[in-house]
Amino acid sequence: MELTGKNLIGNEESGKATTTFFAKNPATQEDLSTSFFEATTNEVAEAATKAKHAFLNYKSKSNEERAVFLETIAENILELGDTLIERCMLETALPEARLTGERMRTINQLRLFASVVRESSWVDVRIDTAIPGRLPVPKPDIRQMQIPLGPVGIFGASNFPFAFSVAGGDTVSALAAGCPVVVKAHPLHPGTSELVGKAIIKAARKTNMPDGVFSMVQGISNEVGMAIVNHPDINAIGFTGSFKGGKAIFDAANLRTVPIPVFAEMGSVNPVFILPGALKERNEIIAKGLIGAVTMGVGQFCTNPGLVVTQKSDDANQFLQNLKVCNSENPSGIMLSGQIKNNFSKGTQNFLSAENVSLISSGSGEESGNKVNPKVFSTDFETFINDSSLSEEVFGPVTLNVITSGKIEMLQLASKLEGHLTATIHGTEKDLIEYSELIHILEQKVGRLIFNGYPTGVEVCHSMVHGGPYPATTAPQSTSVGTAAINRFARPVCYQDFPQSVLPEQLKDDNPLNIWRMINGEMTKK
Amino acid sequence: MELTGKNLIGNEESGKATTTFFAKNPATQEDLSTSFFEATTNEVAEAATKAKHAFLNYKSKSNEERAVFLETIAENILELGDTLIERCMLETALPEARLTGERMRTINQLRLFASVVRESSWVDVRIDTAIPGRLPVPKPDIRQMQIPLGPVGIFGASNFPFAFSVAGGDTVSALAAGCPVVVKAHPLHPGTSELVGKAIIKAARKTNMPDGVFSMVQGISNEVGMAIVNHPDINAIGFTGSFKGGKAIFDAANLRTVPIPVFAEMGSVNPVFILPGALKERNEIIAKGLIGAVTMGVGQFCTNPGLVVTQKSDDANQFLQNLKVCNSENPSGIMLSGQIKNNFSKGTQNFLSAENVSLISSGSGEESGNKVNPKVFSTDFETFINDSSLSEEVFGPVTLNVITSGKIEMLQLASKLEGHLTATIHGTEKDLIEYSELIHILEQKVGRLIFNGYPTGVEVCHSMVHGGPYPATTAPQSTSVGTAAINRFARPVCYQDFPQSVLPEQLKDDNPLNIWRMINGEMTKK
Repeated sequence: MELTGKNLIGNEESGKATTTFFAKNPATQEDLSTSFFEATTNEVAEAATKAKHAFLNYKSKSNEERAVFLETIAENILELGDTLIERCMLETALPEARLTGERMRTINQLRLFASVVRESSWVDVRIDTAIPGRLPVPKPDIRQMQIPLGPVGIFGASNFPFAFSVAGGDTVSALAAGCPVVVKAHPLHPGTSELVGKAIIKAARKTNMPDGVFSMVQGISNEVGMAIVNHPDINAIGFTGSFKGGKAIFDAANLRTVPIPVFAEMGSVNPVFILPGALKERNEIIAKGLIGAVTMGVGQFCTNPGLVVTQKSDDANQFLQNLKVCNSENPSGIMLSGQIKNNFSKGTQNFLSAENVSLISSGSGEESGNKVNPKVFSTDFETFINDSSLSEEVFGPVTLNVITSGKIEMLQLASKLEGHLTATIHGTEKDLIEYSELIHILEQKVGRLIFNGYPTGVEVCHSMVHGGPYPATTAPQSTSVGTAAINRFARPVCYQDFPQSVLPEQLKDDNPLNIWRMINGEMTKK
Repeated sequence: MELTGKNLIGNEESGKATTTFFAKNPATQEDLSTSFFEATTNEVAEAATKAKHAFLNYKSKSNEERAVFLETIAENILELGDTLIERCMLETALPEARLTGERMRTINQLRLFASVVRESSWVDVRIDTAIPGRLPVPKPDIRQMQIPLGPVGIFGASNFPFAFSVAGGDTVSALAAGCPVVVKAHPLHPGTSELVGKAIIKAARKTNMPDGVFSMVQGISNEVGMAIVNHPDINAIGFTGSFKGGKAIFDAANLRTVPIPVFAEMGSVNPVFILPGALKERNEIIAKGLIGAVTMGVGQFCTNPGLVVTQKSDDANQFLQNLKVCNSENPSGIMLSGQIKNNFSKGTQNFLSAENVSLISSGSGEESGNKVNPKVFSTDFETFINDSSLSEEVFGPVTLNVITSGKIEMLQLASKLEGHLTATIHGTEKDLIEYSELIHILEQKVGRLIFNGYPTGVEVCHSMVHGGPYPATTAPQSTSVGTAAINRFARPVCYQDFPQSVLPEQLKDDNPLNIWRMINGEMTKK
């Protein structure tokens, strides 16, 4: 399929700007083929207006029709075959196996949401039936369900060109909820985005979805994204990316005439606590696993474990030694862009220049262009606590081992953490009992707690929480991965004393969709 | 019980300020007995810090203990007997029957939330079990539930001195979720607030809740409230009141170093659409019911129907005539304060001075002091659409009848509405079929749709939505009345591969609490 570089304004391709940009090959730093048209403010407005007009039609589609739409998107992405993988490898320098794996994750995610839409209990029906004779006043009949918010703006992430991008978790959960979507493609993979965007449009046409149910705009400047955030027809934002980007969108959305919710996932340091029993029992295994997690995908995951906390002991010294050994032979990896590489260099430079922070290991590869070596640093509790820059996320393959003097300092460190996506505890069952306070503290700091594992690898399932307190996200009460993500793009409405004939199917007495409902406080499928 | 005028900082009474204020009798405009100490910033900080320290203890209480705490609050409020009702009548000028009714509603609300806590399925457990042999990677065991956010700041409303105040829906849903509460008492009923606040403290002591689980500060200046909003130990805000107040809190909360969610319910005009069939069949009945709703509680309800839309016809003329007749004999009523009365006068003056807006009726009472007469105005579609001030809420007993030329203008008017708490449709079943588009439009504008009824009267039940799109609220995805209100003060956390021994009871394999859970996508009590 030939790339056109144009914006997808509903079913129409559009390239009205005189400003264009190219994707860069991160390995060679050379421009790739095809120039992409930066979307104009007018094009963004057209997309938003089309989305608004598509909304009433789209939300009236049956659950079956909406599910088939999502499944057809999955088929169309698969049908792109090698074309998609090859372009994506050029744009991201990520290896083929990683990308085919991520594509399968994205396909499975689309199918999982299709099943949620088809089953359709997610709308959380609550019915209270009337008691006409109640005193002092009759009790009315009230029926509540979740309805879609309306058109949603989605910002793709650079580090997951499929799973958190054009047809990623934000888009699929919004479409599943019944919301049209306007995607801002990430400028680090515009060609990949165009291919996936067209696969969605093709699915929309084939399944008779209204023109405007999906649009995608390209852009390398902030203006394009802000035009989406500020358009009055946009009702919510989904975002995955940097703190700086997410916070700017959050602030702009709050300053609108009508503020809108921003579901921004902005990354995290993902602290790992290794308790004494585990450090004794599985010292080398944990070190190996940890270095594997730190270096996977050149460390470019939101859930990369950037902080490892141990307690001063011979085992802790041995652990540091093991980290060093495990990392010493690691090759360098190509980061997604020059800017990401520069930020990584700045972050690691900050560690290098800090007093009482030691570089333990720096891999063994050649560092040139966007290639960086994975790094392990070490410091003590006092140094870490007194220099807040050491607790900031450095996006890339690096971790900092903070060696505390013992339990008290470990708990203090946990208490002082900001919000993160995850926290991990390595321990024996005995450790866990002794450190129950640590669990209670960490519950307040993160969206996901992992035991004896690694935070990388975010399972797409019903129970996943990929979220957490600010500054990990701007919306701690939600998740951006897993089926509960659909609720971000819906809100409750109730109908009081409405006749059966005009109630939505989900709320009718005979439960034609056979869904779970709460009736007079009891869960039932009747 | 003697009032002290002091702030309740956990279990301690505190009055450190030199600034004090008095409650006023709205009927006489005279100061009532007892001077109240404006809370200092330090006192607010003490309350927030106590709440933080109480949190870990409070959230570890069993569901049964928490339920008994809520039920004991209910008992203690009832035990205050006439003392509470009498002080409240003095502070609000609301009649005894209204206040005893509202007290019962508040008691029932506490008991309903106690039952929700005891049943405890509200934590929305989702469990996905492990598949160790899955390829390419094993599937972990993941278990999600809702956990409390931490200390919450609550702002009581003036117009419901019990049900939306110190022990009102916001407080009870936060306590039910497991969050300590710091209440900012409304300065229009500080004595009522002190009595209820002490009833809560007494219940906390009796049921062994930690000191700091509840605090209440007094204040007439904005500084007291802002000190709560800006305190780093406060994790969310519940508010019921004016748009101006709610928006100021929302803005401040978003500007914090760590922004926090603000659940502000800021009132609404609650449009009522009367369709042609209903206007023919029940002209006089609807007019009578509507005037009853407009004048109830001197019109001081968030759900007061301030806008009535009809279509030009003989029936519409008759309806206007009926509104006039129904209202003509209505007496005047005493508003809650001089400021509220002045705002009402300004709002009705705006109607009076607008071109093409006619005063149809102005009751028959004497207007003096805080006493006002209920008013009915009328205008046409063009005038209404072209003067945005006519669609702003006028808090009090007034409604504006907009007579449109027909269906098209009625739908246009609906489309142009901002967010409201409610919308009401009066119609025959035949009307509803012909006006299905109106229902679809209004669904996008409100939290609750009422058929052939009146929006006043907000049932406290599982299915209620008392909320709606901005500017009705700052949090359209939530409700402030009904049991779903508890979810405002919780967020999801998941536990990956945790051993049974340290999992919360809600997540253990054998489901010791016997709650509804989603296991591998299926709802079950097993």
